[in-house]
Amino acid sequence: MKKLEQIYEGKAKKVYKTNDPNLYIVDYKDDATAFNGEKKGTIHSKGIINNLVTNHLMKMLEGKGIKTHLVKEISDRETIVKKVDIILIEVIVRNIAAGSLSKRLGIPEGTKLKTTVLEYCYKDDALGDPMINDYHIAALGLATPEELKIISDYAFKINDILTEYLADLKIELIDFKLEFGRTPNGEIILADEISPDTCRFWDSGTGEKLDKDRFRRDMGGVEDAYKEILSRLIGRKL
Amino acid sequence: MKKLEQIYEGKAKKVYKTNDPNLYIVDYKDDATAFNGEKKGTIHSKGIINNLVTNHLMKMLEGKGIKTHLVKEISDRETIVKKVDIILIEVIVRNIAAGSLSKRLGIPEGTKLKTTVLEYCYKDDALGDPMINDYHIAALGLATPEELKIISDYAFKINDILTEYLADLKIELIDFKLEFGRTPNGEIILADEISPDTCRFWDSGTGEKLDKDRFRRDMGGVEDAYKEILSRLIGRKL
Ligand SMILES: Nc1ncnc2c1ncn2[C@@H]1O[C@H](COP(=O)(O)OP(=O)(O)O)[C@@H](O)[C@H]1O
Ligand SMILES: Nc1ncnc2c1ncn2[C@@H]1O[C@H](COP(=O)(O)OP(=O)(O)O)[C@@H](O)[C@H]1O
Ligand SMILES: [Mg+2]
Ligand SMILES: [Mg+2]
Repeated sequence: MKKLEQIYEGKAKKVYKTNDPNLYIVDYKDDATAFNGEKKGTIHSKGIINNLVTNHLMKMLEGKGIKTHLVKEISDRETIVKKVDIILIEVIVRNIAAGSLSKRLGIPEGTKLKTTVLEYCYKDDALGDPMINDYHIAALGLATPEELKIISDYAFKINDILTEYLADLKIELIDFKLEFGRTPNGEIILADEISPDTCRFWDSGTGEKLDKDRFRRDMGGVEDAYKEILSRLIGRKL
Repeated sequence: MKKLEQIYEGKAKKVYKTNDPNLYIVDYKDDATAFNGEKKGTIHSKGIINNLVTNHLMKMLEGKGIKTHLVKEISDRETIVKKVDIILIEVIVRNIAAGSLSKRLGIPEGTKLKTTVLEYCYKDDALGDPMINDYHIAALGLATPEELKIISDYAFKINDILTEYLADLKIELIDFKLEFGRTPNGEIILADEISPDTCRFWDSGTGEKLDKDRFRRDMGGVEDAYKEILSRLIGRKL
């Protein structure tokens, strides 16, 4: 497998072509951004942690029937993945109120939601990833109703699996963001990452935040939080 | 029917108790607000026009099987309505992109939407009426899934009826906002108003705006636009 030219660089990862037209290599960076790119910084070793954590969780999910883009981890920061057309919908699953939900709806952070909340945002940095619903998705042509059904079923199933898996590691899954993609033959699979960048993880005992909110809110202990997640999930110390 | 004490005053209407515990009197004001109350003004005769237009359209809708709060018009500004518990959801129906949709999603104003778009906002001035979806509605306990099904069915049916009715008057229905309420016996009915304050009306021939956008955007000709709607719908000149 040869790493060929970079085809795009996002806020947290670079994506490269390979000599196999159906495969990409993603390369995780230490760059951190928040508030739609307004805040910028570096979280030392984040690229390694997010790569290893994403692959660990995707492998676990594959074992429970979730199709993902994961092919093979090739280094601490690099992974071979199936090339997909990313569906331009950020799928957010929320168990406990936090962040933008708390602010927008006036529900205090930490409130257990009466029902799991699914949200869609239009993945468009220039527009600030605005919230959308099924009708906007149809009007924008982002996904068919059939694709959206697969995506929402996957999102709830992934939430159930992750919540249970993380509870055993004394991690409470507050909320998280998923991205899905279409393979060349039209199959919908889980893509992108599942990491402390894209999830809110709270220590089940103390409620301590073990995720990117430490960076967003200048709480300090950012690197240690990411390392703690790596350690609990994989047992590896950085 | 006696008009008793005022029980609340909103941005556009006052609501009074009556000697019948199941009935209110609404009294339409000329006060105009926009951008969640930031912009304030007066539109001369608006109260009369919105009262007469709302009652005219609600009567027409009743004839097509839509249950509404309308009981009886008692003066140019006052109407007896069924008292309801207002469901705290603003139901927005959009046929053509305009206003906040155009801004949020980058769809130029005037673009025909590929599919009719339904949006819900949480009716809460302090929060700025944020957009919500079915899951937020469940989590906030604003309506049951059964109620929401009745509301969305009503919204699409009202859109079909209004669009056709207005087209004959050379008015294009761009979008509009509805409010629903629960009667004491739990029935869901259409409440509030349907007026140039709550709808976008464009002249079918010229595209001229005949609604509150003239006030929001300081376009001038506000009173004339409201009067034109009254005249086309009811044939009455003010
Ligand atoms: N399997 C995949 N195939 C193609 N693109 C992918 C895949 N997985 C993730 N991506 C995309 O890679 C890009 C880079 O990732 P990231 O740095 O997180 O970007 P962003 O700045 O959009 O968050 C994103 O657009 C993401 O959607
Ligand atoms: N049939 C009804 N029963 C009870 N309240 C009603 C009814 N119809 C409308 N209302 C409510 O009357 C209030 C006053 O109307 P308005 O001035 O438009 O208020 P707002 O400032 O919330 O837009 C609103 O809260 C509206 O929801
Ligand atoms: Mg990303
Ligand atoms: Mg109102």
